Amino acid sequence: MENFVEAIARKRDGLELTRAEIDGFVGGAVSGTVPDEQLAAMLMAICIRSMTAAETSLLVDSMLQWGERWQIGVQFPDAVDKHSTGGVGDSVSLVFAPLVRSCGIPVVMMAGAGLGHTQGTLDKLAAIPGFATAGNREEAVARLSSCGVVFARQSGELSPADKKLYLLRDTTGTVPSLPLITASIMSKKLAVGAARLVLDVKQGAGAFCKTAAMARELARGLHGVGEHAGVEVRTLISDMEEPLGARLGTASEVLASLDVLRGGGDPRLRDMTVELAVEALVLAGRKADEARSELLARLRDGSALRAWESIVTAHGGNPDAARLVRPRRRAMAVATRSGFVTAVAAETLGWIAVALGAGRRFQGDEIDFAAGVTVHARIGDRVEEGQSVATLELGIRDVDLDVEVARAAGAFAIGEEVPPVRPLICERLGVR
Amino acid sequence: MENFVEAIARKRDGLELTRAEIDGFVGGAVSGTVPDEQLAAMLMAICIRSMTAAETSLLVDSMLQWGERWQIGVQFPDAVDKHSTGGVGDSVSLVFAPLVRSCGIPVVMMAGAGLGHTQGTLDKLAAIPGFATAGNREEAVARLSSCGVVFARQSGELSPADKKLYLLRDTTGTVPSLPLITASIMSKKLAVGAARLVLDVKQGAGAFCKTAAMARELARGLHGVGEHAGVEVRTLISDMEEPLGARLGTASEVLASLDVLRGGGDPRLRDMTVELAVEALVLAGRKADEARSELLARLRDGSALRAWESIVTAHGGNPDAARLVRPRRRAMAVATRSGFVTAVAAETLGWIAVALGAGRRFQGDEIDFAAGVTVHARIGDRVEEGQSVATLELGIRDVDLDVEVARAAGAFAIGEEVPPVRPLICERLGVR
Repeated sequence: MENFVEAIARKRDGLELTRAEIDGFVGGAVSGTVPDEQLAAMLMAICIRSMTAAETSLLVDSMLQWGERWQIGVQFPDAVDKHSTGGVGDSVSLVFAPLVRSCGIPVVMMAGAGLGHTQGTLDKLAAIPGFATAGNREEAVARLSSCGVVFARQSGELSPADKKLYLLRDTTGTVPSLPLITASIMSKKLAVGAARLVLDVKQGAGAFCKTAAMARELARGLHGVGEHAGVEVRTLISDMEEPLGARLGTASEVLASLDVLRGGGDPRLRDMTVELAVEALVLAGRKADEARSELLARLRDGSALRAWESIVTAHGGNPDAARLVRPRRRAMAVATRSGFVTAVAAETLGWIAVALGAGRRFQGDEIDFAAGVTVHARIGDRVEEGQSVATLELGIRDVDLDVEVARAAGAFAIGEEVPPVRPLICERLGVR
Repeated sequence: MENFVEAIARKRDGLELTRAEIDGFVGGAVSGTVPDEQLAAMLMAICIRSMTAAETSLLVDSMLQWGERWQIGVQFPDAVDKHSTGGVGDSVSLVFAPLVRSCGIPVVMMAGAGLGHTQGTLDKLAAIPGFATAGNREEAVARLSSCGVVFARQSGELSPADKKLYLLRDTTGTVPSLPLITASIMSKKLAVGAARLVLDVKQGAGAFCKTAAMARELARGLHGVGEHAGVEVRTLISDMEEPLGARLGTASEVLASLDVLRGGGDPRLRDMTVELAVEALVLAGRKADEARSELLARLRDGSALRAWESIVTAHGGNPDAARLVRPRRRAMAVATRSGFVTAVAAETLGWIAVALGAGRRFQGDEIDFAAGVTVHARIGDRVEEGQSVATLELGIRDVDLDVEVARAAGAFAIGEEVPPVRPLICERLGVR
């Protein structure tokens, strides 16, 4: 403990921590031998002083020494993992898994619960009656063997160090630290242990990384830790200035995914999924252009949809879309003036979806699967005053609808000029 | 608590805390409603991001709202308090109190235990048989009324916020923060509540403030908080490149003080005390030059010594120097070469004194009043190889004497050139 104060002081002064100091930090956190106040002081020092790429890799190594390791890559060397840093209207995971699977590649997906203003894959899957994620290695291997895809959830045994540090970061103002975020994500990815990994780092007003510079730093950090650990990684940085797909919610996002899997759906949601799937296929040795053509064919010919149905069934779920909960009532938010949509506040819309029931307002809150928001206007669209820009969908949760409708209308900025077109994919990391 | 995370995040990002946030921090610390890990995160954020003068004053105000206030200035408007940031061989307090008292001015002195490599006034007073410091307002007022001086000790009731934060800082690597140090010192000074205050900020290799810039920043912080609270303050920044007086220890420093009080003694210890006492007399309306002459006269004519005897008696102690514990044996450290002393590592010598018994090596360790170090060579002195540069004095504590003698010899750097003369008083704050 005396030595740990020295380690805290060194990070406080902006120095690089040694392997022994990082091991002491992580081991102390998991075993409880370093008290919370010392862990918190270290977390804050890291949050402000940051960590080098070498320190971050050491931190991940150290976190991996505790808890289970699934070693999926040993049994399924072709399996690919996909991770996104979190967006609004982003149901990519639900399309990516069956789409990549339909091209013959196993997919491992660690689904997380909704966080802040973003809706979580775990909550979306929970909207499917009977769907059960895998909670341990045995279940994960069984799902992969039966349907070629596993949707898993993080258990405390998988990364106890992350679990402990994450809870502490939440109450000590030390969440927004790129090295700590990197270590949290990558410790879980490496514990699952797929040999191939596709990363999607979001940038823009609706994302954690508001700027291109921050997104690039996070992307490089994640990518670097992955490569350092011997994983084949491809990383995209993609746009989150507005919601990705038109639908925000849980059951609602399952429907949005089904639309894409049927060969139609929201073009941005489809394009984003296809671009990430291209990276997965490239990791499997395909050429990018051929991969893209194959993926679009799998969406058109129904094989991606069939893969989805077999995945849902293998996870105990009912793939019948008619079984999904539907909204009890709807309310419309309209354009406050005529003009061109210049901005759509994805974060605000995400929080509205949470307020309506698509997320938890406090720990232990129940998700209302019927709740969500559907966006009708995108950046660059021409709208007329009074035209519907969003529909608020309600289930059984009691909300102040007037307030939420007004917030939703206010989320759309409307101006005279057509805004510049933004690319969906901002940057690609990893050599072809 | 939710709000407190926001306050932590604001300080993490380098923003200025509001009064409400600071009140929440201090109130949460004292009442226990904010958990230690959140307090630790805030302390680290403050340690790295610092605080403005306004924030520091708000922090002190907030700390003062908890615990006792002695309000000494109400009953004794002329009483002066003196505080030093801690030096080696610095027994100024033991001379200052009787000297200023002999000029008719009441003195309030909060004595602290030894900290790190410096010996504490509380431990030096404890070497005087029977000496009992005042532990509450009633005792302090009684001592001031009977002998015009009180030596008090900090009780938990005086500044519970400081007590709680100080313990937490010690284990979380957040001790070296100038605003936190300032708040810790000034919350206690203002809780005691003398209307006049003389501050001595040490600078140099043997002090907490190693550089002039750091010492000036701390001095301005302390001075500013005092003035902000309506206290009349005079602040000196003084040299701590080498030990102030020749003697380091507890009983040994009482003897060093008596030498000065008898009109002789170490010239640097005498000069430093006189300069601080001049500030006290200036605060009482005297002219500096006249004050200095009067003080020197009080040392020569024995009135300062008589004041000391009456102070010791009033505190239940025995003023007979013959009753002080003496060393059981001594060991000599000698010059390793001939030349001019260019540096004397005060911190090393302070730690040696601690090792011999003049300080605590761990919480609850016993002080050995016989232990100490006497320095025979000062910066600029000519020494010959083999000449004694320091005497190590031992009591009953078992120590590896060879090691300590070698360390002591190594504390004296000896070169060819006469080093430049350094002023004892580096800077004076506060308008004349």
